[in-house]
Amino acid sequence: MKLVFSKTNLAKAVGIVMKAVPAKTTMNILECILIDATTNEIKFTANDMELGIETIVEGEILEKGKVAIDAKIFSEIVRKLPDNEICIETDSNYTSLITCEKSKFNIAGKSGDDFSYLPIIEKDKFITLSQFTLRETINQTLFSIAMNDNNKMMTGELFEVANGILKVVGLDGHRIAIRNIELTSHADDVKVVVPGKTLSEISKILSTNAEDAVTIYFTNNHILFEFDNTTVVSRLIEGEYFRINQMLSSDYETKVTINKKEFLDSIDRATLLIKESEKKPIILSITDGSLEVHVNSSMGSLNEDIDINKDGKDIMIGFNPKFLIDALKVIDDEQIYIYLVNPKAPCFIKDKEESYIYLILPVNFTAE
Amino acid sequence: MKLVFSKTNLAKAVGIVMKAVPAKTTMNILECILIDATTNEIKFTANDMELGIETIVEGEILEKGKVAIDAKIFSEIVRKLPDNEICIETDSNYTSLITCEKSKFNIAGKSGDDFSYLPIIEKDKFITLSQFTLRETINQTLFSIAMNDNNKMMTGELFEVANGILKVVGLDGHRIAIRNIELTSHADDVKVVVPGKTLSEISKILSTNAEDAVTIYFTNNHILFEFDNTTVVSRLIEGEYFRINQMLSSDYETKVTINKKEFLDSIDRATLLIKESEKKPIILSITDGSLEVHVNSSMGSLNEDIDINKDGKDIMIGFNPKFLIDALKVIDDEQIYIYLVNPKAPCFIKDKEESYIYLILPVNFTAE
Repeated sequence: MKLVFSKTNLAKAVGIVMKAVPAKTTMNILECILIDATTNEIKFTANDMELGIETIVEGEILEKGKVAIDAKIFSEIVRKLPDNEICIETDSNYTSLITCEKSKFNIAGKSGDDFSYLPIIEKDKFITLSQFTLRETINQTLFSIAMNDNNKMMTGELFEVANGILKVVGLDGHRIAIRNIELTSHADDVKVVVPGKTLSEISKILSTNAEDAVTIYFTNNHILFEFDNTTVVSRLIEGEYFRINQMLSSDYETKVTINKKEFLDSIDRATLLIKESEKKPIILSITDGSLEVHVNSSMGSLNEDIDINKDGKDIMIGFNPKFLIDALKVIDDEQIYIYLVNPKAPCFIKDKEESYIYLILPVNFTAE
Repeated sequence: MKLVFSKTNLAKAVGIVMKAVPAKTTMNILECILIDATTNEIKFTANDMELGIETIVEGEILEKGKVAIDAKIFSEIVRKLPDNEICIETDSNYTSLITCEKSKFNIAGKSGDDFSYLPIIEKDKFITLSQFTLRETINQTLFSIAMNDNNKMMTGELFEVANGILKVVGLDGHRIAIRNIELTSHADDVKVVVPGKTLSEISKILSTNAEDAVTIYFTNNHILFEFDNTTVVSRLIEGEYFRINQMLSSDYETKVTINKKEFLDSIDRATLLIKESEKKPIILSITDGSLEVHVNSSMGSLNEDIDINKDGKDIMIGFNPKFLIDALKVIDDEQIYIYLVNPKAPCFIKDKEESYIYLILPVNFTAE
C-alpha cells in the first residue's frame, strides 16, 4: 500500500476517527485505525464495538492495500509532521513508513483482517437537520444525564421524533433537560435512547456551520449519523425510556421573569462560599420585584438582590446551585421565566414556546 | 476599617500578593492577606516566611484600620465581583463585609497583629535593570535547576554581578544554563543564590514592558526586588555555589551551525517514539553538511536529516531529548552553534558573545 495525503486532510481525518478509539481495551486491534485503500477511495475506520466511525479521506492511491496502525502514535506523528505532503507506505509485514520532507518514521502495523468494520445499517427511517443544530442540542441537554451507570437508561438521551418535531431529553433523577427542534425536511417518527458517550463524541466532530446537514438513520438497535464524508454508527440503549410527560406540569403558583446573566453571575458568586463536602444549598427568596440569593456557610455569607417581575405568591426555595448554573449556561435568552409551585416541588425554566424546558428539583434547607 | 477600590486595582493587587501565599501551611495566619490601612496608604502583604510580597494599592480610605483575610476566598470573591467599585468594611470582630453593586459578602477576618511583616532590608548594594529582561532571564534559565532538593544549592540560581555584568546560572547535575546581561546603570558586585521558587513567582508578576525598571537589593541573607508599587523579599540559599568556570571549556573538536527551528521540530518529533519509562536517547550523527536525528524504540524508528555547516570531526552522540528541547525553546536566535568534543564530553550551545551558554551532558547509547 502506498498513499499520499496533504497534512491538513490527513490530520482532519485522523482527528475524526480518533473519537471512536477506546482509551483502554483488551483487544489490541481496537486501538488501531484501519486504513483501507483496497478500492478507489481511502477509508479510515475506528470502532470500539459500541461506537464506530468511518471517514473517506482525500488522497492519492499509488498502490492499493490496507493496514491497521496504532491510533495514538499515528495521530501524534501526523500532528507533529510539517505542513506538507505525507506519504504512507507499507511492506508485506505491515511495517509502515511515514515520510514527510526529511522525516522518516517507521512503525509497526497490523493486518487489517481482524478489524471489525461498521455494521451494515438499513437506511429506512431517517431525519435530516443542520449539524450546528444537532451539536447545540446535544450541548444544551447532555450535562443533565447521569455520569455513573447505576441506571443505564439515565446515561443516554431520548431522541423522539413525532409530527416533525425532534425531542431530545436527558435526565439524572434530580433534573430533566428537554429541547424540542422543529424539523423542516423529511422526518420519520422514532423513539430511541442514544448513549451519552456517542453524543459527546459526535458533538466534537460536527461542523459549526448551520448550512451543513447531517442525516440520522434509525433502526431498532443502531443509530447512524451521516455527514460530510463521515459515518458514525452507535448501538442504542435498549429498553423503554422514562415517562417524562407525567413529570411535566404547567400549573404554577409563582412565575418569575429575570435577567439570565444577572441570575447566573449571582449564583456563580454564591458557589464561592460552598465547599463540595458541605453540600450547602443556595436559598432564593422571591418577593414582589425582588429575588434574593442567599447562602450561609462555614466560610461566610452572601446576600444579593436581583430585580425581577413576579406573578403569584411569594416563595422561599433552596437549590443545588450547580443544577441552576448548568441550565442557565446553555440558555441563550436574555430574559428567562421560572415557574414554581412550592418549596418541595420541581421548578421549571422554560420559554413560552417550550423549545426548551429545564426541570430542577429543589433541596431542603433550614430557614434562619 | 472601611476602604473603597476599583475592581481592577483590587484584583491586580490581590493577584500580586497571592504569589507569596503558601499552598499548605500549619500557620493559619500565613494563608491570609494582610490589608493595612493604618497610615495614609493601603498596603497588602502576604508572607510565607521564605518569600514575602508587599504592594501599595490605589484606593480610598474612609476609615483607617487593618485586617487579615483568608487569601483564597478573598481572591475568588474579588475575581467574581462585577467590574465596579468594591467596598471592604470590617467591624471590631474583624468580620469583613465586601460589597459591590447588589452583592454583599460577609466573611470572617483576623486581627493583623500576628502577621509577620516583611523583614527590614538594608538598601546598600543594588542593581537596576528592565523588568522585561529580568523576566526573560529567569525563564531562559530556571528550567535547568533541580526539582527535588537532595542538593539544596541546585534548587536555586546563582546571581553574580561583576564588572557591570549580571550572570544568572541554573544547573541540575546534567546540564547548566547561563545568561550574561550587561547592566547599563549602577551595579554593585555581588554573588548570591536565589531560591528557584522565588524566581518563578516573581517572573509571573514582572511587567512585560521593557521600559519598566526593577531594582534588586542584596544583603547576606536576603534579596529584595522593588518595582512599580511592589516589594518582594526572599531569603537566599546559604553556602557556596558550584565552581562552574572549571566546567566550561572553549575547546572543541566539532562545531555545528544549524537552523534552530528545524533542529527543535525534529527532536520534538523524535520524542513521540520515546516512552518516559524507556529513557531512550536520541542519537545525532554529524557528518559534512548533515546532522541526522535518529531514534529507535519499541514503538518504531525515526530518521531525519537536517542541513548544517560543520567544522571539524564527524561525531555520533546521544542525548536525553528533553534537555535539548528545553534549551532550544528559550533561544531566540535563528541560527545556533553547537560545540562538541567527543561522545562522553558535554556539548555546548552558545552564541559568539556568550550572552548565553547551555551545557548538556550526553548519554550513552548502543550504536546499531
